[in-house]
Amino acid sequence: GVTVDKLSSTDVLEVWGHLAHDNVSDEIVDRIYRRIVFEGMGLIVLHSAHLSKIFRRLMGTTCRLKWREAGELERVWVISPGHPIADGLNEYFEIEHSEMYGEPFDIPPPDQLIFISWFKGGEVFRSGCCFYRGMGKIFYFSPGHETYPIYYDPNVRRVIYNAILWAKPIKRATPVFGRVEPLEKI
Amino acid sequence: GVTVDKLSSTDVLEVWGHLAHDNVSDEIVDRIYRRIVFEGMGLIVLHSAHLSKIFRRLMGTTCRLKWREAGELERVWVISPGHPIADGLNEYFEIEHSEMYGEPFDIPPPDQLIFISWFKGGEVFRSGCCFYRGMGKIFYFSPGHETYPIYYDPNVRRVIYNAILWAKPIKRATPVFGRVEPLEKI
Amino acid sequence: GVTVDKLSSTDVLEVWGHLAHDNVSDEIVDRIYRRIVFEGMGLIVLHSAHLSKIFRRLMGTTCRLKWREAGELERVWVISPGHPIADGLNEYFEIEHSEMYGEPFDIPPPDQLIFISWFKGGEVFRSGCCFYRGMGKIFYFSPGHETYPIYYDPNVRRVIYNAILWAKPIKRATPVFGRVEPLEKI
Amino acid sequence: GVTVDKLSSTDVLEVWGHLAHDNVSDEIVDRIYRRIVFEGMGLIVLHSAHLSKIFRRLMGTTCRLKWREAGELERVWVISPGHPIADGLNEYFEIEHSEMYGEPFDIPPPDQLIFISWFKGGEVFRSGCCFYRGMGKIFYFSPGHETYPIYYDPNVRRVIYNAILWAKPIKRATPVFGRVEPLEKI
Repeated sequence: GVTVDKLSSTDVLEVWGHLAHDNVSDEIVDRIYRRIVFEGMGLIVLHSAHLSKIFRRLMGTTCRLKWREAGELERVWVISPGHPIADGLNEYFEIEHSEMYGEPFDIPPPDQLIFISWFKGGEVFRSGCCFYRGMGKIFYFSPGHETYPIYYDPNVRRVIYNAILWAKPIKRATPVFGRVEPLEKI
Repeated sequence: GVTVDKLSSTDVLEVWGHLAHDNVSDEIVDRIYRRIVFEGMGLIVLHSAHLSKIFRRLMGTTCRLKWREAGELERVWVISPGHPIADGLNEYFEIEHSEMYGEPFDIPPPDQLIFISWFKGGEVFRSGCCFYRGMGKIFYFSPGHETYPIYYDPNVRRVIYNAILWAKPIKRATPVFGRVEPLEKI
Repeated sequence: GVTVDKLSSTDVLEVWGHLAHDNVSDEIVDRIYRRIVFEGMGLIVLHSAHLSKIFRRLMGTTCRLKWREAGELERVWVISPGHPIADGLNEYFEIEHSEMYGEPFDIPPPDQLIFISWFKGGEVFRSGCCFYRGMGKIFYFSPGHETYPIYYDPNVRRVIYNAILWAKPIKRATPVFGRVEPLEKI
Repeated sequence: GVTVDKLSSTDVLEVWGHLAHDNVSDEIVDRIYRRIVFEGMGLIVLHSAHLSKIFRRLMGTTCRLKWREAGELERVWVISPGHPIADGLNEYFEIEHSEMYGEPFDIPPPDQLIFISWFKGGEVFRSGCCFYRGMGKIFYFSPGHETYPIYYDPNVRRVIYNAILWAKPIKRATPVFGRVEPLEKI
């Protein structure tokens, strides 16, 4: 349960999950959405959470992609060499047995593209993508199938650690919208 | 009424409207959405249609902004000098009596920023913004209050004309999503 | 020879070439540069012209990359499904025997990323990139080694044709820089 | 003097200066350039350093703009509400007596646009711009004329402080370019 209390003390939320996305109530999605867009909570979206309600709502697109569960090699290439999410990484890292996620990936053009993955079976994928939405920062990272021990991989852990630091909120008043008086004489 | 027939023969749709956005049924919004994202119909979003259901759904943000109805001067500066939407324009054009729309404007970072407006009362606004979503191209253009004769202005008309040409669909098969066989031996 | 006359009547210039880049005089590079940035001439940069003087000057980076001449398969994936440069293409096309160009590719983040290539040998590459610079539009497209008949490929020809249409100049006065009087009373 | 020793122990370099840009030797510019692009040193470019050799080389454009020295009001609006460079700022801050810098500003489209300035005299300006180049991060910030006490302003100081934190290098091996062996059997 994502309670109001827990959420208001959360700086960066990770979302992971398969299939059960539609069981998350719209009320909870609204709560998470407002905490991101109005208060700057960071959001790390992992693997199959590309179809989570919160990610699709923030993206405004279908977030669909190609996929295949064949345990094939994925090689994740760093495309943004100076970005903080790439801190400590070599020019690529490999995931020996991965679920394939392939292009086209129906997302908005990422505000920053950090990784592109190569798959043994012939596909490519934008596997690390940054988005700025309202006060919030969102990072999508595709590796992470549940039947492979991907979250024990030191590179994957490093990426998630870096992304949490990158996505943490800054301190600013919530933007003011609506009718305003002029700042200058008209 | 936006019928299936009319929509399927429309290349670029213009949206304009005040206040009554919530009267548009979700079914029609879905129809427009699918025609844009899956089939590449262009969308020109004018003035107060920043709050239309279709624009907010495509953006994934609240699309809120500051505003003031004082008939003040707006000066629209061209920021992307070589973009086709700026074809035929001088470095700026003026709208003598305009409704003020001011920052922050809660949209995703535009994929291309074409215009920035200066307002007499002290605000700035990203008044011409391009977005790529799925197969579709979307242009938001803020000038156009109904109580001023803005759509007779030759610069405004030129912008809308240019935007229609820019937003027209290309001819490609709709992308394929879902489970796929490998293209190479794994 | 790139004469003043020829250049001033050229709308879009294609650059292709191996190794001999340093034989192009700085005067000619200046001439091409000014025609792009001040007058909006388009530039199509093909294959090994990533190291041409004009491309490196416009990018401001080293434009270096990984490469290998092994005649391996390149599969070019369309990433921007609605962009005019992708008009008429399927979701990917293949070049049976290609020179490998691989990441990291030391360019600025492209203003629009159109293609990502998969190579049999394990690399990926941003193989179709759009850049806006001054009044000009620049498209880099990597396929095209001289020992393989790549420019007879109908997909490659279609891309270059589309890119020429995309890169053509618009008609506007050259921007004014320098000291100016105020437009409003200070 | 920018010696090799000093530079190699510098994480983020600030550049400020009027007119004398051409007195900086090409050798020093090369040294700074390599330290940014290959080793990730950050670069903060202030005010009239938009015409410094190092900034123009990194941008690949002329970096020219409009200007006027009339001590007029500049109002700096935050456009990227969640970006770390905006940490601690209100929705805008004012500089009572500023040199006007106006659009068009001949730079590549910024990778992130943080601030847009409003000037009393009628112009707008992209006054805070982030660029990623090679391993390095570059921030251009326009306020700062030498005859006004701008660098004592707490908002300006906060921006520069935030930018230094944002621009600091990450720890990674320098990218490898050139001829490589395949990672997979071809």
